[in-house]
Amino acid sequence: MQRTEISTLGEFGLIKHLTESFKPANPSTLKGVGDDAAVLDYAGKRTLVTTDLLLEGVHFDLTYVPLKYLGYKAAVVNFSDIYAMNGEPKQITVSLGVSKRFCIEDLEALYAGIRQACEHYGVDLVGGDTSASLTGLAISITCLGEGEEGKIVYRNGARPNDLICVSGDLGSAYMGLQLLEREKIVLEGDPDAQPEFEGRDYILQRQLKPEARRDIVLALREKGIVPTAMMDVSDGLSSELMHLCTQSHTGCRVYEDKIPISYEAAVMAEELNMNIVTAALNGGEDYELLFTVSMDDYEKIITLDNVGIVGHMTKPELGLNLIGRQGEEIALKAQGWNPLKG
Amino acid sequence: MQRTEISTLGEFGLIKHLTESFKPANPSTLKGVGDDAAVLDYAGKRTLVTTDLLLEGVHFDLTYVPLKYLGYKAAVVNFSDIYAMNGEPKQITVSLGVSKRFCIEDLEALYAGIRQACEHYGVDLVGGDTSASLTGLAISITCLGEGEEGKIVYRNGARPNDLICVSGDLGSAYMGLQLLEREKIVLEGDPDAQPEFEGRDYILQRQLKPEARRDIVLALREKGIVPTAMMDVSDGLSSELMHLCTQSHTGCRVYEDKIPISYEAAVMAEELNMNIVTAALNGGEDYELLFTVSMDDYEKIITLDNVGIVGHMTKPELGLNLIGRQGEEIALKAQGWNPLKG
Repeated sequence: MQRTEISTLGEFGLIKHLTESFKPANPSTLKGVGDDAAVLDYAGKRTLVTTDLLLEGVHFDLTYVPLKYLGYKAAVVNFSDIYAMNGEPKQITVSLGVSKRFCIEDLEALYAGIRQACEHYGVDLVGGDTSASLTGLAISITCLGEGEEGKIVYRNGARPNDLICVSGDLGSAYMGLQLLEREKIVLEGDPDAQPEFEGRDYILQRQLKPEARRDIVLALREKGIVPTAMMDVSDGLSSELMHLCTQSHTGCRVYEDKIPISYEAAVMAEELNMNIVTAALNGGEDYELLFTVSMDDYEKIITLDNVGIVGHMTKPELGLNLIGRQGEEIALKAQGWNPLKG
Repeated sequence: MQRTEISTLGEFGLIKHLTESFKPANPSTLKGVGDDAAVLDYAGKRTLVTTDLLLEGVHFDLTYVPLKYLGYKAAVVNFSDIYAMNGEPKQITVSLGVSKRFCIEDLEALYAGIRQACEHYGVDLVGGDTSASLTGLAISITCLGEGEEGKIVYRNGARPNDLICVSGDLGSAYMGLQLLEREKIVLEGDPDAQPEFEGRDYILQRQLKPEARRDIVLALREKGIVPTAMMDVSDGLSSELMHLCTQSHTGCRVYEDKIPISYEAAVMAEELNMNIVTAALNGGEDYELLFTVSMDDYEKIITLDNVGIVGHMTKPELGLNLIGRQGEEIALKAQGWNPLKG
């Protein structure tokens, strides 16, 4: 039998490959695979649904992630997908697979984090189950949300000349991860070592306890801005720009000096001798919103707090380009995704 | 820190323990944790949602389960939960965690089974992802369905004197599992041994490629019967009766000689020196429907194919009893569930 390695396709190629022969048959299925969430029509209102499977050792490392934070983050990353459709998360289901290593107090801590996230974002836990696992912890979360007809924002609506906007800053979560990995190695070498976390609260929080940008979605609504395309930044700016441009059939020009970077992340990168822009482009787990708006909304956009314009969309034949500080053009590449990198 | 073993609570106690402090806040959340699916109100129509996490080595054994069948079954068991609410499954999301052991052809086979199930039941795949796993295969499926206001059937609506009905037969899937386990041991001892599967098609199909009882839900609708309570039989009749009686605040009397058993399962049990009624009571994975109807519906129920009356509900103080072939009363017990038994 033929044997093709999964790595030859990449995540998105793989999902497409596996799912393209499924044809939606129900009138209520408005949007299936291919965006942050599916869109379903139940009598007028749109139901949004998104799902995530997190596996220990691949998606999280319990040697430095407290279970409560893990629960919080596992829920929030799903909420982020619903906000990225310009919707509101309303319900989640949580399924766990747990090995004998875990006790009830561990699961209480995990659920305490999930509950905190649910309360903070006004989301109801509506189902799920817990079963055994042979090794480690598996967390599967599905989130349902509501969207308004005509106001749901997909990845495919951007047009040439639209402004590209990013909320908050990028790369901080990745630098937080680098710090945790460094301290883990230090701790493994010397159990008495004191972790050097002082003054690093921001990047640690960004990695361990990220927030979804509900505030941005609400602010856009308040200003009467409906983005032409939107998604959340979970795999790094490069990868997400590639999704937006591919699905919208555009190119883009993004300016290096416009990419929002936090002071704390920049300091950490300096200390670790890493390039912070590379971290912002390829690091991931920022859960900021990346969206495009019509030029007509320029005056409104610049009045928004925590939103920066990083570039603009172009005709597709111009490609995806990063404009460096000296004006040089660099073709944007998404880091190759490997489902087995864990 | 206190350490309480998960096994002290059991699955349902654990889920209740972990989720009871979550209070639904959205008006659209009509029913959360505690039934086969959650019920959400999006402008009139009811959205049903259910989820399942299946882990290799715990929920399935790939040494004898072909991946295509596994995909089919993983989807169908979710559809079954939606039918058990008297709803119709409409969409699913599928998330996979896969170790390096698997290649694309493996996942194609898995998805082929999922697709076959989707096509057969008219369900759309609308999302999900695939990522790495350190060990084995993890499958997380969430299913959304539609229900009609006023027609959704919960577990808590049964009243004393209601008739208890079961579709199809019970215990066959469990006997299929026993056969597969026996042949696995034979094969491990002697790789050249020929598995003895002849004439066992029915119990193997029941274990490997079960169906959800859409036909029964449609037949009930056609006859104008709305069950007072309903659920699917995934953990054995005893355990499910306990759920129905607990949630409905009733007792029950179930007659041993009325429990539907297939000829093939009875023969297999005989050969393995097992009690087929015990298999029906505690075996699980039948995915038949267990439901109660008002006495007024007796005349209608007896005209239904593939549905048998196995007993009736009683006042709660009478307890849960199995009436043996000689008229003896045996108190029903659910097998203790242990989340770490895998």
